[in-house]
Order: sequence, then C-alpha cells, then structure tokens
Amino acid sequence: MLESLKKQVYDANMQLPKLGLVTFTWGNVSGIDREKGLFVIKPSGVAYEDLTPDDMVVVNLQGEVVEGDLNPSSDTPTHTVLYNEFPDIGGIVHTHSPWAVAFASAHMDVPNLNTTAADTFYGDVPVSEALTKQEIEEAYEENTGKVIVKTFKDRGIDHNAVPAVIVSQHGPFSWGATPEKAVYNAKVLEVVADIDYHALTLTHADVHVPQYLLDKHYYRKHGKNAYYGQNNAKSKSHAVKL
Amino acid sequence: MLESLKKQVYDANMQLPKLGLVTFTWGNVSGIDREKGLFVIKPSGVAYEDLTPDDMVVVNLQGEVVEGDLNPSSDTPTHTVLYNEFPDIGGIVHTHSPWAVAFASAHMDVPNLNTTAADTFYGDVPVSEALTKQEIEEAYEENTGKVIVKTFKDRGIDHNAVPAVIVSQHGPFSWGATPEKAVYNAKVLEVVADIDYHALTLTHADVHVPQYLLDKHYYRKHGKNAYYGQNNAKSKSHAVKL
Amino acid sequence: MLESLKKQVYDANMQLPKLGLVTFTWGNVSGIDREKGLFVIKPSGVAYEDLTPDDMVVVNLQGEVVEGDLNPSSDTPTHTVLYNEFPDIGGIVHTHSPWAVAFASAHMDVPNLNTTAADTFYGDVPVSEALTKQEIEEAYEENTGKVIVKTFKDRGIDHNAVPAVIVSQHGPFSWGATPEKAVYNAKVLEVVADIDYHALTLTHADVHVPQYLLDKHYYRKHGKNAYYGQNNAKSKSHAVKL
Amino acid sequence: MLESLKKQVYDANMQLPKLGLVTFTWGNVSGIDREKGLFVIKPSGVAYEDLTPDDMVVVNLQGEVVEGDLNPSSDTPTHTVLYNEFPDIGGIVHTHSPWAVAFASAHMDVPNLNTTAADTFYGDVPVSEALTKQEIEEAYEENTGKVIVKTFKDRGIDHNAVPAVIVSQHGPFSWGATPEKAVYNAKVLEVVADIDYHALTLTHADVHVPQYLLDKHYYRKHGKNAYYGQNNAKSKSHAVKL
Repeated sequence: MLESLKKQVYDANMQLPKLGLVTFTWGNVSGIDREKGLFVIKPSGVAYEDLTPDDMVVVNLQGEVVEGDLNPSSDTPTHTVLYNEFPDIGGIVHTHSPWAVAFASAHMDVPNLNTTAADTFYGDVPVSEALTKQEIEEAYEENTGKVIVKTFKDRGIDHNAVPAVIVSQHGPFSWGATPEKAVYNAKVLEVVADIDYHALTLTHADVHVPQYLLDKHYYRKHGKNAYYGQNNAKSKSHAVKL
Repeated sequence: MLESLKKQVYDANMQLPKLGLVTFTWGNVSGIDREKGLFVIKPSGVAYEDLTPDDMVVVNLQGEVVEGDLNPSSDTPTHTVLYNEFPDIGGIVHTHSPWAVAFASAHMDVPNLNTTAADTFYGDVPVSEALTKQEIEEAYEENTGKVIVKTFKDRGIDHNAVPAVIVSQHGPFSWGATPEKAVYNAKVLEVVADIDYHALTLTHADVHVPQYLLDKHYYRKHGKNAYYGQNNAKSKSHAVKL
Repeated sequence: MLESLKKQVYDANMQLPKLGLVTFTWGNVSGIDREKGLFVIKPSGVAYEDLTPDDMVVVNLQGEVVEGDLNPSSDTPTHTVLYNEFPDIGGIVHTHSPWAVAFASAHMDVPNLNTTAADTFYGDVPVSEALTKQEIEEAYEENTGKVIVKTFKDRGIDHNAVPAVIVSQHGPFSWGATPEKAVYNAKVLEVVADIDYHALTLTHADVHVPQYLLDKHYYRKHGKNAYYGQNNAKSKSHAVKL
Repeated sequence: MLESLKKQVYDANMQLPKLGLVTFTWGNVSGIDREKGLFVIKPSGVAYEDLTPDDMVVVNLQGEVVEGDLNPSSDTPTHTVLYNEFPDIGGIVHTHSPWAVAFASAHMDVPNLNTTAADTFYGDVPVSEALTKQEIEEAYEENTGKVIVKTFKDRGIDHNAVPAVIVSQHGPFSWGATPEKAVYNAKVLEVVADIDYHALTLTHADVHVPQYLLDKHYYRKHGKNAYYGQNNAKSKSHAVKL
C-alpha cells in the first residue's frame, strides 16, 4: 500500500540527520496522497539508522492508523490537522533543530532580515501563540495543529508564502508541496534562525528587509515570473532539485 | 569478571566521542551490577582509540579496585558516592562538554525553557553548590559526589526526574537506569545548554515552560501513561533504542 | 570551447561545499579569459553533486550566453559588471555563508581587527550601500554590481587591496586574480566575520588594528617585498597553493 | 639530519588540521633537539596535504637555516626567541584558531573560569602587550617573541605553569616539553576560549576559579603528587598519550 510514497517519505526522513536537523529520534516527516486521502509518517521513537521504508505508518485524515505495525509519530495529530486545514500541502516536517528551538524558547518570530530568508519565506516566520493549560491537557498534539492554523489566520499570513512556523517553547514545523520541499524549508529555517540570532545580537536597529527586496527575492524563485534555476533552460537533463 | 557489563560500559564510553561530548580523554562512563555491588569504570587518562573492554576497571561500593591493572578514572570516588546515595541508578557519565561547562563556569542552572528539555528533565538542571576549600583539599572527588547529593536534597529535586547536574565551575554529571541512558541524558543536557544559551541571550524575560507543559512533555515519555515510542506497538521487531 | 577554464571554474565551485561556504545551491564561482573577453560561470540552481565541467556556461562581457544549454547563475549580471569595472580580476565568488550574511543583515562592515584579516584584506571589508526600490525593480542583479563598484569608489577603497564586499541585507561577493584565489578570499572573509562577531560582542572598545600592523601583515603576503611562502625558496617543487 | 625529530614535528603539524585548529596553511609546529641546539619547523605556506617529513626545515638558535630547500615558517624568529628565552621547552605551536583570535582581537586574557582550564593552565592565559610601531617595523617576528617573554616577566607568570599566550590582535602561541604537548596545549586553549566566551556573555560576575580549586586541578595532573592517568598503574601497556 502506497509503496512509492513510503519510499519517498522514508528518503525525506533520512535527509534530516544528513542535514544536521535532528539529534537522536527528534524529528519526523510525513507525505500525503491527496487522491486517496491517506498520509504516510515516520514511526515514533525509532532510530534513523534502523528505519526502513516498510516501517512507515499509513494514517487517514481522521488520524487513524490504516496500515503499519508500529506506532506512528506522537506528533501525528498535528500533521492530521495541518493536512486538513492546509489542503494544498503535500508534506510536513517537525524537528527540534537548535537554532529554531532557541527562537521558540524566547517566544520570538524568526524575522526576515536578508535575501536568504526572502528567497524562501515571504515575511517573518511566526512564533505561534502559546497553548493554554486546557489545550495542552485535553488534546495536546491536535491543539498544536490548531494553534498553528489560528496563528496564521489571526496574523493574516498565507501558509504557502510562509511555509513554516515556530511553535512557542517547542520548535519548528514546516511544510511544502512535497515531503522533500518541506525538508528543504526546515533546513532554510534553521540556517535563517542561525544568521538572525547573530544579526540581532550585533545590532539593535530594526533591520527587516524592505518590501521591494522581499518581493524581488521571493518572486525570483516563486510564481510565473520566477527566473532562478533551470525551468526555462534549453536542456532539461538536469532535474533541478528544489 | 563482569565481561558483559565491561562490554556495555566500553560501548557507552565509545559513544562519548561519537556524540561530540569529549575532547581528548575528558570523560568517563561507569555501569553497576547491583546484585554483586560492583561497578565498572573507564581507566584514567587513556585515549578512546586505545581503549578495549578489557581495560575497564572493576570497583566495589567502598571505592576499592577489585580487578584491573589500570588506574580507574580519577572521578571514581564521585561515582562511588552517587551509586551509594542514588540506589536506583545503573550508570553514570561525566564529561567536560563545552555548553554545559559554560553554565558551570557562570554558576548557573540550565533552565527548562522548552519541550526538548521537558522531554527528559522534569525541571531545571541544577548547578551544585561550590565546594569549600576544606572539601576540595581533604577529599575532592568524594566531596564532589556529596555536594551533588546535598544540592538535590536541599532543593528538593528528585534525582530520577532530573538525572543530571552541573558541578559548579567544573562540568556535568548525568546518570540513568543504564550506562546508555546516562549517555543519552549527557547528550540531551549538552543540546539543551546550547539552546538555552541562545534563548537567554536573545530575550531577558523569564521564559521557563509552565508546569502544565512540563508535565505534558515529561510524562509523554516517562511513567505508566507514556505514549512516545513503540512500547505498546503491535510489532516489537524494533527495539526502541532509548 | 574554453575547456580548461571550464574545468578550473568547476573545480573552484566544488571547493565551496568542501570549505563549508554553501547550503544547497546557494553559491557560484566564475572565471574569465581576458584575451577572449569571455567568462565561464556555474549554471543556476544545479546541485553541486550533479555538476560537471561541461555544465559550465560561457558568457560574454555584455552578459550574453555564448555557449551552454543551461541557464547561467541568476547572479550573472553582477559578475558581468564586476568583470567590466574591475579589469584586473580573474575570478568572482558569491555565497550566502552565514557569518558574512549576519553582517549583511546588520548592515555592518566586517572590520579589520586582527592579523588574520590583515593578511588578506588591507582594511575593513565594506558593506555596500542598500539598493533603492527603483534599482531593485529595474535591473536587480546588474545594479547589485553597480552598487558594489560605487561603494568602493565613494569610500576610496582599492578593490585589489580589499577583494571582497558585503552586499547589504544580501551577502558576500569576493574576487581575485584567479577563481581559486576568489574562493580563498571568500573563505577568509567567513572566518574573519566569525572571529569579528565574537570579538565585537566581548568588548565595546574600538579594536581595529593600527595602520602599522595592517601594513606589516598585508605586505608580508602581497607586493614585491612579500616574504611569506615559497616564492624565493631554493626548491620550487612545492607549488604554493594560494 | 634529525630524521626522527623531523618525523615527530611533521606528525605534530598534521594534528593541527585534525584537531580543527587551522584553516589553509595558518599554523606551524616546531620541535627542538637541545643537545644539538637545532630546531625543526614547518616550511612557510605549504598546504598540509602536500607536506612530508622531509620538507621540515632545520634552524639553529641564531635563527639561521641549517638544512632544507624550503623557506621556514615566517614565524621562525618568534620560535627562535622562545627557544632561547624558555630553555626548558621542547616544542612550540602557533595557530590562528578562531576562539583564541577572538580574545586576541578584543585584547583580553583568556581567564581561568573552570577545571577544564585549571587542569592545564595554572592561571589566566595572558594577552601580550601590543607591539609598538617601531617593534613591528624593525623586526616584527623577533619582537613578537620578545613581547611574549616580557609579558610573562612583567606579570610574574611562570611559562611552564601557563604554557600559552594570546598575542594581542594576532593569535595564540603555546609550548610544552614536546611538540605533541604543545599541540595539546593549543587545543586546550581553543576549547577554554570557546567556553569562556559563552560564560562571560552569560554572566557579568567575576567567576574566576578560587586558588584552592586551581591548585587542586592543576596539581592532580602536574608535579610529583599528580594522580590523573596511568603513571602509577600496575600495567604499563597503555602509553598514556598526554
């Protein structure tokens, strides 16, 4: 069942340690088959070196396990909410990458201060509101998804234009059209948080990029006028990776 | 004698350089056989690449060498005190990992600011009281163990719920049910200290996790209602590592 | 066409990930054949592990592609301006290396605070002026080149003595007599930015090197009285790399 | 000539990149044969991957090359002064390791704040006085050696008890009984500078170790009552590395 998607999600999970985004088992990637309404996710607490494509767990959009002998990631209810509320995304990543968690701990947005951020994020990556005691005790992981959605709605942020969030006192979630693209966004967020920490502690001025620089860099890589990469090249021999 | 435990302690020691926790020979792991009342510890000042399981030294709970041609770790009296005073622990780790030593140098607790900390530590990791001149001169390593125990008693901290300490101006000790679990806790402490440094220098607010978030994350991984990992999975084919 | 230069530029590009200067595809190196008036540059958005010497794109000094099936780097118009305005340089590098981008985000020069900087840069590495909205919207990459040239002219900086710049809110460009030398300068800039961040946050004094120390270190490696390395050695068997 | 010492100095030089202490060619190690009054040093500006034991240059205590086709390190006059003024040392290391250079840039001592420092350095590692314009212009490298010696004399520091210095606005020199021991001290200094930076920016209190803790840790590894390591072990099969 969904063998090809399982392999794709497995490969995306294996990118996390390679990109330096996880310690031990602290991360997970999922990917969805929108036609079937099923997503595939890493099992909970299994070491990356022991993981195989067959270990991936299949879950439906009610969050129920449809196939798999292992428990799915404990964050599965968060993924379920996001797939339901963000109907155009194809993959989700959660990690505890340290620079992003530093901003989560400080309850701060990761601001858009340079073209490295603007190439991927059309604005600041928001920190979510904190969950209340009741939200945590009643349905923690599901409410984590709901507070992410609420944060984007309340602040009027397009989740496709800013495909990541910092969950307050917890850590980053990112998403994208595919699991690989969600992993890419997770890495960009970590690099941007690293750079931002140093920029913010070097200067006390507001050094956000102006709107016109944000527009230029975001749209050189996104949308119909994008001109970065090889989409319009004479040769298609190189699949542009991301 | 204790060949299996020697191999286990050797393997746990070899995890320290792999996890980036030691420079040169600055770290040691021990593990105990509670039935026999003997523990096994790394020899003092031997390079990791030269270490073999047979080099491990066997010590009794009076701190006397029972078997082994090499001197045991100079920290052996600290391990002895901890095994006597914390009768439920099975392994102990000491390192000079740099983020934890930075907090030791500043004589500061490593505070619990995020779910990465809360998953492992049920509260702040305390900095010990400083040893007095007399305590240092009379029985330094033994008194290091005693001041750790006193710190936990005086502050009312359960050493099983917070399985690590920062010895003031020195560095981290951690422990656990097994040597491997103690190594895991040593790595978590180093990652948390790294994140905390950056969170604390980004913000000046008190950003401790609230009690209900601490409860949620700690108990999702510990105790009878824990649901992280594969303990309740249909398949037991994957030994969950930690 | 230009097979030897393509190989040289390819090799210089492959140094970027090896030296830790790029994440994903975020960097490019070019090299010029001054006699032919043609330069060779990395294609846009191709992963380093997929790159071959034949993928390199040949461009003339009007910025037009002369040979190659792939799109050249989106930064090609910046390289074109720099080759036209700095007629003595042979190679150019652009990266998003994180320490340099932190200074770019903070809109700060990378100051010359130590002999590591003075050995390569005869003064501070300047941050460029910010591009205006009109400059960005009309011809972004070309105007990036122009603002670099203007910054050096306005501040009276010799681009051969300070072979690098921090483009405001963007990142570093560096150059040199050859593509390899430009890569070397990119790495030195990143190392110096790393050290400078820590020096500046440790002290609040102005700790620029004095002119006589700058002179000593810069000229021990540059000019007719340079004495570092093997140029005057009895044995020429070791090609001095840089 | 001095084949064994050449091999030893070569090996010590090759430890520098392995320990992460050098970028490009920015470091050198020398070692001395006190009976012959000759020392062996790395050639100037040769890449580590191209280096062979035969490339090492033999120099006398007047700083004159006695054997070797390559130019010796440009820092040779500094080594010469140190070998003459510190008659009990057997090896010297110079690097531009980044944490130590950050302290050099800030013109600050690397203070003794924890047992990691106290195990190796019996006090703060001093920053040298700055060289004057005349000292730099007349005999820069020789005067670098002289200002190191003067700093130790003026501040009453025993160069055997504190076997390293931070040359102001330049970087670290360290030394020891052998070239390997000097490399060990160079690495310890870099680790301590890393930790100190973070401790000093976490707290604003004076957190120097007290004298009795410094005594305890320094003398557990040095002198006739040292008890760290295997010098008194029953088995001598393990050569204790350092």
